[in-house]
Amino acid sequence: VNGLFGGGNKDNNSEDGQSKAGIFGNMQNMYETVKKAQMVVQVEAVRVQKELAAAEFDGYCAGELVKVTLSGNQQPIRTDITEAAMELGSEKLSQLVTEAYKDAHAKSVVAMKERMSDLAQSLGMPPGLSEGMK
Amino acid sequence: VNGLFGGGNKDNNSEDGQSKAGIFGNMQNMYETVKKAQMVVQVEAVRVQKELAAAEFDGYCAGELVKVTLSGNQQPIRTDITEAAMELGSEKLSQLVTEAYKDAHAKSVVAMKERMSDLAQSLGMPPGLSEGMK
Repeated sequence: VNGLFGGGNKDNNSEDGQSKAGIFGNMQNMYETVKKAQMVVQVEAVRVQKELAAAEFDGYCAGELVKVTLSGNQQPIRTDITEAAMELGSEKLSQLVTEAYKDAHAKSVVAMKERMSDLAQSLGMPPGLSEGMK
Repeated sequence: VNGLFGGGNKDNNSEDGQSKAGIFGNMQNMYETVKKAQMVVQVEAVRVQKELAAAEFDGYCAGELVKVTLSGNQQPIRTDITEAAMELGSEKLSQLVTEAYKDAHAKSVVAMKERMSDLAQSLGMPPGLSEGMK
């Protein structure tokens, strides 16, 4: 039975028929390999996302009068305002809360980027590409 | 002068030589096209990132006693704690601040995902892929 790509005539064209089948055969394998690689990347990315969602990062304002906790994907979890902070009045306290949130947000983003970069390298991707994984 | 891929012998193999050159030629063009597409995606992604960084999203706790403003990439910008909120004490106020931050964070993330999804579609990518653009 002739293969899908014909190649029935056994004269000097068969070598050409086989090279074409070879090329298409390789493309098919390459396609399967890429598909599998995508699956692995997706499964790993989901695992890392869950890990980040469960992680906690604490941020503080100057003097640690306010403490803020965010998850590894920057979700707000908890705010702790001390009595001492309350005595500074609403305007000053608002600034301290923003400061603490900025601190926690920065720590959370740094940790997430590191985690994504580790993941990209463990999957054999060039370091630069991990930026796109964020 | 023979082309890079030889093909000097003019007997019935020339058709095979040309098909090989054709295939490699096409692959070269495809490579150039993919390269250009990547450049366009990168330039557009940077433009959208800047747009998001400049955008502002306000979040509130119940009763709007606390208002929080985040950027389009979830950076904390401003917190506004009202006098009425101050009177509720540090524990209750801490909860209201967290609530307002969650509200602002959710709005910011939704807007960012929509913007990324629009970008992906404008670049001709299938909608599902935009998830990876986040």
